[in-house]
Amino acid sequence: MRILITGGTGFIGKQLAQRLLDLGTLALDGQAPRTVERIVLFDAFDGEGVPSDPRLEVVTGDISDAPTLARITDGIDLVWHLAAVVSSAAEADFDLGMQVNLHGLMTLLETLRQQGRAPRLVYASGFAVFGGVLPHVVNDDTALTPQSSYGMQKAVGELLVADYARKGFIDGRVLRLPTIAVRPGKPNKAASTFFSSIIREPLAGLPAVCPVRPDTPVYLSSPRRAVESMLLAMTLAPEALGNQRVIPLPGLTTTVADMVAALERVAGPDAVKLIRWEPDATIQRIVESWPSRVEAPYARSLGFKADPDFDTLIRAHIEDTAAH
Amino acid sequence: MRILITGGTGFIGKQLAQRLLDLGTLALDGQAPRTVERIVLFDAFDGEGVPSDPRLEVVTGDISDAPTLARITDGIDLVWHLAAVVSSAAEADFDLGMQVNLHGLMTLLETLRQQGRAPRLVYASGFAVFGGVLPHVVNDDTALTPQSSYGMQKAVGELLVADYARKGFIDGRVLRLPTIAVRPGKPNKAASTFFSSIIREPLAGLPAVCPVRPDTPVYLSSPRRAVESMLLAMTLAPEALGNQRVIPLPGLTTTVADMVAALERVAGPDAVKLIRWEPDATIQRIVESWPSRVEAPYARSLGFKADPDFDTLIRAHIEDTAAH
Repeated sequence: MRILITGGTGFIGKQLAQRLLDLGTLALDGQAPRTVERIVLFDAFDGEGVPSDPRLEVVTGDISDAPTLARITDGIDLVWHLAAVVSSAAEADFDLGMQVNLHGLMTLLETLRQQGRAPRLVYASGFAVFGGVLPHVVNDDTALTPQSSYGMQKAVGELLVADYARKGFIDGRVLRLPTIAVRPGKPNKAASTFFSSIIREPLAGLPAVCPVRPDTPVYLSSPRRAVESMLLAMTLAPEALGNQRVIPLPGLTTTVADMVAALERVAGPDAVKLIRWEPDATIQRIVESWPSRVEAPYARSLGFKADPDFDTLIRAHIEDTAAH
Repeated sequence: MRILITGGTGFIGKQLAQRLLDLGTLALDGQAPRTVERIVLFDAFDGEGVPSDPRLEVVTGDISDAPTLARITDGIDLVWHLAAVVSSAAEADFDLGMQVNLHGLMTLLETLRQQGRAPRLVYASGFAVFGGVLPHVVNDDTALTPQSSYGMQKAVGELLVADYARKGFIDGRVLRLPTIAVRPGKPNKAASTFFSSIIREPLAGLPAVCPVRPDTPVYLSSPRRAVESMLLAMTLAPEALGNQRVIPLPGLTTTVADMVAALERVAGPDAVKLIRWEPDATIQRIVESWPSRVEAPYARSLGFKADPDFDTLIRAHIEDTAAH
């Protein structure tokens, strides 16, 4: 099988690629496993720490450029579309967010439609499609009310992928992902980036800033769990999904205080002392506009799972960091 | 005030233009009335029966062409964006639906944003943003689940207009309109066109075909009521709307059987005999996928109203037809 991962040099793209290379095969629809022949990681940037493997190629370019997309999608069987400008960046630079998050997806979908091979595509959305006044518990049927351009672009993306799938132009699946932590690497321009920093930096003996109150709730997934969900979403038979192509994922509901308590249990009180609390009203507002209590019965019925607890999540991060 | 109505030679565009010309002024935000200086009706087609008035100009062109839009929006204060490829046509010709319903809107929004004057814009959406398995009663908080490309394009349009308004690029307002009947003129390519035909044609002594069962429910607005809602949506102060820019409208819930009974009461049994019942499974399926029982508390709180009953609606159609 020939595989394309857009946003492929981002941390989830790299971890997904490594997992596919390690597996060597992928079984779609409960059928016989098929060999992973080739993986194209497409991104705007060359990434650091890209797996070194003869089956893997990195291609850089503009996701909204149709000739580029025609080239990288040629002969592709499976697409994970992860390329995105993250929340704060898309809010600060409206044009960039529209170009990548909306026109990039539209160009990709049209390119795949014109090729007429209806490849399988997994699209990464997120719970930033919600905002403002929300019900106490968000579920599979809660109306999308984005309060950021990033959230709007993801909500539009969900609708586009679902309709292209309904029309049979692609075999599309949308994953609505929780906030992912603990991310490896460095802080990015996501408003949520501190959820990783306040764990990752202290574990490395470095200081970190927490811009929100300890009681701030959050809905999380580990990178490992997100990658497993990416794989499951791709391998499910289309009949299992029917016309219901948007899959809001289960996650772990916790608070910043509980995350910090878990850090102390795993790494000791000195680690916690490296966190400096500097409230930022803008980030507090953005983060609080996202749902933290979520029911995801559809995803659970399909076999998707949440992380069991935050201690486990920190230990997995330590293992993954040590492995690199 | 200088006004642009896209889709302006369609029947709602013409009725709205006539109403504006008759009023001569429009009072925004409860302020002093301002003079209607100029109305541009923009459409792909020259229309029949366009009001003849020195204040009014018809311009034809492609709604997705940026230079055209820059020209017609120059100096404009108010925009009603009604241009759309209707449901069955957008389903049959995916490219055309995307070009007009999605790229047309996106080009318009970007043109207005680049001009930096943040004009007021009313966008016509519809209850075709819903489909599939719906709750017994659809309300302001029901998740959008379009089951047609037209519905997807309208749902995407709602999200785009709301975000452009949130960012302050436009002062946008979305009206989610019920099915409009009785439309004047001829049948179009909307799956819902028969809701008008089965009343309009018999009143004119002509035969009509009804492709659905008599017990089929429908959620309706008269053209008059739709035009009044268009005016109210434009005149409301932005403070009355805040960040809640999508306004699902009240409507009249009835059935085909009750519509036909009203026709008999108003026009006699001979009119009803002109309806031929020829079930069409495709149209039945599409029409049944739309909601018919709707609660619209937000719109009602803003002063929007539904038609009182279908008899009144037929009588208004007869009056409007006689007036032309």
